[in-house]
Amino acid sequence: MISFESDYNTGAHPQILKRLAKTNLEALSGYGTDPYCESAREKIKATCRCPQAQVEFFIGGTQTNSVIISTILRDFEGVIAAQTGHVSIHEAGAVEFTGHKVLEVSQKDGKIEPATLRGFMEDFYADGNHEHMVFPGMVYISHPTEYGTLYTKEELSEISAICRSFRVPLYLDGAQLGYGLMSRETDVTLPEIAELCDVFYIGGTKVGALCGEAVVFTKQNMPAHFMTSVKKRGALLAKGRLLGIQFDTLFSDGLYFEISRHAIEMAEQMKAIFRRKGLTFYLESPTNQQFIILENSHLEQLRKNVAVSFWEKYDDSHTVVRFATSWSTTKDDLSALEELL
Amino acid sequence: MISFESDYNTGAHPQILKRLAKTNLEALSGYGTDPYCESAREKIKATCRCPQAQVEFFIGGTQTNSVIISTILRDFEGVIAAQTGHVSIHEAGAVEFTGHKVLEVSQKDGKIEPATLRGFMEDFYADGNHEHMVFPGMVYISHPTEYGTLYTKEELSEISAICRSFRVPLYLDGAQLGYGLMSRETDVTLPEIAELCDVFYIGGTKVGALCGEAVVFTKQNMPAHFMTSVKKRGALLAKGRLLGIQFDTLFSDGLYFEISRHAIEMAEQMKAIFRRKGLTFYLESPTNQQFIILENSHLEQLRKNVAVSFWEKYDDSHTVVRFATSWSTTKDDLSALEELL
Amino acid sequence: MISFESDYNTGAHPQILKRLAKTNLEALSGYGTDPYCESAREKIKATCRCPQAQVEFFIGGTQTNSVIISTILRDFEGVIAAQTGHVSIHEAGAVEFTGHKVLEVSQKDGKIEPATLRGFMEDFYADGNHEHMVFPGMVYISHPTEYGTLYTKEELSEISAICRSFRVPLYLDGAQLGYGLMSRETDVTLPEIAELCDVFYIGGTKVGALCGEAVVFTKQNMPAHFMTSVKKRGALLAKGRLLGIQFDTLFSDGLYFEISRHAIEMAEQMKAIFRRKGLTFYLESPTNQQFIILENSHLEQLRKNVAVSFWEKYDDSHTVVRFATSWSTTKDDLSALEELL
Amino acid sequence: MISFESDYNTGAHPQILKRLAKTNLEALSGYGTDPYCESAREKIKATCRCPQAQVEFFIGGTQTNSVIISTILRDFEGVIAAQTGHVSIHEAGAVEFTGHKVLEVSQKDGKIEPATLRGFMEDFYADGNHEHMVFPGMVYISHPTEYGTLYTKEELSEISAICRSFRVPLYLDGAQLGYGLMSRETDVTLPEIAELCDVFYIGGTKVGALCGEAVVFTKQNMPAHFMTSVKKRGALLAKGRLLGIQFDTLFSDGLYFEISRHAIEMAEQMKAIFRRKGLTFYLESPTNQQFIILENSHLEQLRKNVAVSFWEKYDDSHTVVRFATSWSTTKDDLSALEELL
Repeated sequence: MISFESDYNTGAHPQILKRLAKTNLEALSGYGTDPYCESAREKIKATCRCPQAQVEFFIGGTQTNSVIISTILRDFEGVIAAQTGHVSIHEAGAVEFTGHKVLEVSQKDGKIEPATLRGFMEDFYADGNHEHMVFPGMVYISHPTEYGTLYTKEELSEISAICRSFRVPLYLDGAQLGYGLMSRETDVTLPEIAELCDVFYIGGTKVGALCGEAVVFTKQNMPAHFMTSVKKRGALLAKGRLLGIQFDTLFSDGLYFEISRHAIEMAEQMKAIFRRKGLTFYLESPTNQQFIILENSHLEQLRKNVAVSFWEKYDDSHTVVRFATSWSTTKDDLSALEELL
Repeated sequence: MISFESDYNTGAHPQILKRLAKTNLEALSGYGTDPYCESAREKIKATCRCPQAQVEFFIGGTQTNSVIISTILRDFEGVIAAQTGHVSIHEAGAVEFTGHKVLEVSQKDGKIEPATLRGFMEDFYADGNHEHMVFPGMVYISHPTEYGTLYTKEELSEISAICRSFRVPLYLDGAQLGYGLMSRETDVTLPEIAELCDVFYIGGTKVGALCGEAVVFTKQNMPAHFMTSVKKRGALLAKGRLLGIQFDTLFSDGLYFEISRHAIEMAEQMKAIFRRKGLTFYLESPTNQQFIILENSHLEQLRKNVAVSFWEKYDDSHTVVRFATSWSTTKDDLSALEELL
Repeated sequence: MISFESDYNTGAHPQILKRLAKTNLEALSGYGTDPYCESAREKIKATCRCPQAQVEFFIGGTQTNSVIISTILRDFEGVIAAQTGHVSIHEAGAVEFTGHKVLEVSQKDGKIEPATLRGFMEDFYADGNHEHMVFPGMVYISHPTEYGTLYTKEELSEISAICRSFRVPLYLDGAQLGYGLMSRETDVTLPEIAELCDVFYIGGTKVGALCGEAVVFTKQNMPAHFMTSVKKRGALLAKGRLLGIQFDTLFSDGLYFEISRHAIEMAEQMKAIFRRKGLTFYLESPTNQQFIILENSHLEQLRKNVAVSFWEKYDDSHTVVRFATSWSTTKDDLSALEELL
Repeated sequence: MISFESDYNTGAHPQILKRLAKTNLEALSGYGTDPYCESAREKIKATCRCPQAQVEFFIGGTQTNSVIISTILRDFEGVIAAQTGHVSIHEAGAVEFTGHKVLEVSQKDGKIEPATLRGFMEDFYADGNHEHMVFPGMVYISHPTEYGTLYTKEELSEISAICRSFRVPLYLDGAQLGYGLMSRETDVTLPEIAELCDVFYIGGTKVGALCGEAVVFTKQNMPAHFMTSVKKRGALLAKGRLLGIQFDTLFSDGLYFEISRHAIEMAEQMKAIFRRKGLTFYLESPTNQQFIILENSHLEQLRKNVAVSFWEKYDDSHTVVRFATSWSTTKDDLSALEELL
């Protein structure tokens, strides 16, 4: 059985496990105050070329989104997100749990188009009743999106400019950021993201860590007494070292990028296999997730040997299926897949 | 430098790291649905002699408390806790964040006395205005308490009986449960806890895991669609294996109890050292935390070589200090401590 | 200056003020426990032909919606509403403030079509990831809708049947219910609403009261200790008599229906005027609100003597304007309007 | 039957009803934007001698407390209140519903002593773990307190000074403020309250209005987009005129003070009756509420003709009972009471 089910179904990159073992007996202070967290922060700031950044670590994506959004929004505000955004659909209402609305806007391939955003903001302020409405107080985008697609530098710059003109912070969910940065089709770099966004996170869980996401506040805009707000949300890890050591490892010797590049390379080879086999792409993404339309009986057959993700029903006889690569995908996996298709 | 600062300042028990490494390449489903989580659940149920139990895993204690309390309480209810309870003081208002009040009652050595609980319940229902008040909807105790003290079987039974007579669930915070179970002075066993409590958790973070707490619902009383409520609170771990593998290891071959017994043994030897040195106990606990009153200059001197926890100011010239042992405390640590005192 | 701005811009029907004055010196118990509240409850139950109903009073519509929705939904659920629903747009995120998502669905003339609802429910349960999503736990409709439109008996029955088949309660926002019931074009009666809905409210604020909405739980489904949940939300009125006396008056001698019939009669005459004057209807509603497209300079001219509500921009030279009638609209107002148009 | 049960069991002062009737047909804009609200604001600002004040109106006390506290506190903060404070006990957890903890401190006769407050603040910042605790972000006091007692000018000044030194706003709950201001034993004036507090409210419900409380922000410190936050909490009244007209009337020709003085005069005569009859005071308050210890059979006898409030059990044969006067208490009521005692 080979698996392309997700990018989080194997453990951690071996170097991470090695590092955890090596540091295991050191007595370290808790809650993110240990030297590994500190070192990881410095490496991330350097990699982002953002010396004034403030970096904090969280366990998972939904937790990160909910903490960041709810500590930055003001009482009367909500967060704008694509209708297909992770916070809109697949986080069980975690943002609403904190008392704030997700203001859903239309999308294209998972992305918010700049014109859509501008229109939404202008319409809001044009409405004479807007004091009875939730104010747009933040823009949430994901990069890569839930469909594996990417914003261009131009799109990102335009969205950032709109946010600034309306004095609304831009937040980028980078659960799979590495794959976006290492895509062959992107023109966006990490320092540019740090410059254009007010806050974003660098995903670890889906890019080789056991768990963990690194949040980067780029404009000295970390909320006051942030540790207390994090604790209040049950999101403060006692053995903060678990996150610090992982990110310190990921940002040593470019491991984060190496892992990402490997998964992209595997994804490109996988795309080539799909093409050779004449399969139909539902969406040919530039990152590590590919969406293929399979005939149902074909899918059933395939699933005896290959784990994949159901994405959605296409029609009565076809299904959209997601294939994902990760740090642990091997050439052997791809050969086996090609044979089985 | 030796450390008695806390029971969570070193990494994980080596067997846990070994197991994580061994299983690292297996492709497993996420969110707690993998076979290691399942195996850990079965082992915990067996150890608790509670076959009908439902077991779920969380990352840390505050998260666990906040999820459990807020999903079990009804809208009009709050949770009773000692004024010194962890949820009352040291969780930054995590219970209140979910919209529920902590009803603080007086305590003795960190414990709620049965008479106090009974009085509180009776007074509440005697008050003609109680429809304008927060209903007591759950009782929270910790065992060991924040002071390292333990409930006796008699006390626990009495509290449980009061809870049942008022139809209010009893929740036991077992962040350091292992040390309570392995204490030389306890008459309470794990199956008894499972019988007397409606829900409790078995702490991993402070008992040898990298992170993790195992919640046990003992009466088929896990809230409906609990996974969704957990996700909504940002508390659902993508790579659930990280928790499953750790608890499966801790509950194989009695490792959880072995770790706990070791820390208790170290604590008892430490207590003997304190007595030999003529130090004054602020509170001589039956578990792995000891509270000592030190003259300030003595403390200052000691801290050059020993990491300990400030607990509270005793008077102008003395300080209460906490010494904790853990899985990683060694006889050498104790010898060094004795020499330094 | 005459006003068609809204149905809540004059005070209360004179009989209400008379009754308040007459009972003013009586010493009555607070919080809705007085005999006028009790009498109003009985009259409403009788009028709804729903003897098992439970009736409670609130001050205003947003408060009512937020209390009802948040006390009925379970933790993992949200409420389905039309994208144009009052709870979706014009209540500043009051539902989200209580920790629950509004699941917005498409609409036609302000109404949720039965097929839309059925599709939404079926799609939700077909989604393999639905444990990561907000469960649909209630359906919210307004009748009349925000556009003054009405559900037919057939539509309402179908929506009710879908709700029951999915075991989801149906909640009807009746802020302007009287106008719906007295419309010349409706085939829906109050007892039918009581039968088809699980909970609904009879609006007072917009139908002749100073303030007040009467919530009707039709299936013995009032949440436990509801008074405490209401108090917790700051929605319990000390001098509950203010609501009890008003609703007791409105439901004596058919006053509620008389007020509503009058406003409908005025609205029908107003529609006739608009037709005679050749004005363009944006939406010709069967209730007390009419939406007219006016040329901007015409509107500017009109506003010197007539207060109306801006609804939305139609195009660069036209505006959609709302004209509303109420208990206090007179034939003289209409004559004056006709002259001014 | 005569009633001393509470100060909110009769309707409104007749001048209020008269004014509501007189203005009834005027078409006014909603949500607090009408000229009566504006006029009432100006009169209150003038009476407080606080020209920079911002004044908003709410329906009731719990609603007011919950809106004010939750919009002023920052995410990581809670509100300090006496253990006997209304927000601590009798509001069903309304503050906690908004996600914030009430930090309860000890009290004397319902008041927070300045030394208690100072100690609490100092201890908090001295605690090395305070980042894991709820920050004290506001001080809540009531004046008169729940026991009818009053702060002296010196106490109030000292509390205010402590608040300022810790940069924490001082909020005064004036549900019965009029009685405090007109007490024979007070040295505190309304302008002094406006100067010493950051925000407070002038109670209407218990001082002659049908409903309504006027919040005064004294330092240009009304939260941004406050109307939206109020709406979000379901606390924005559509026919805002109902509050505006009442407060405009109460603050015309000193009616608010006249009502309060009358109730105080009646309370003083009632105290004289109690003394003449040899009754035992549980607490002899300087305001309109008196607490008397009655022998149980005496109480039972009395209740056949007099409505009073149960306060608490004193011992097995005695009960503490509250007698309250209000705008509608008459000399005849007092004569009848004296006869019955």
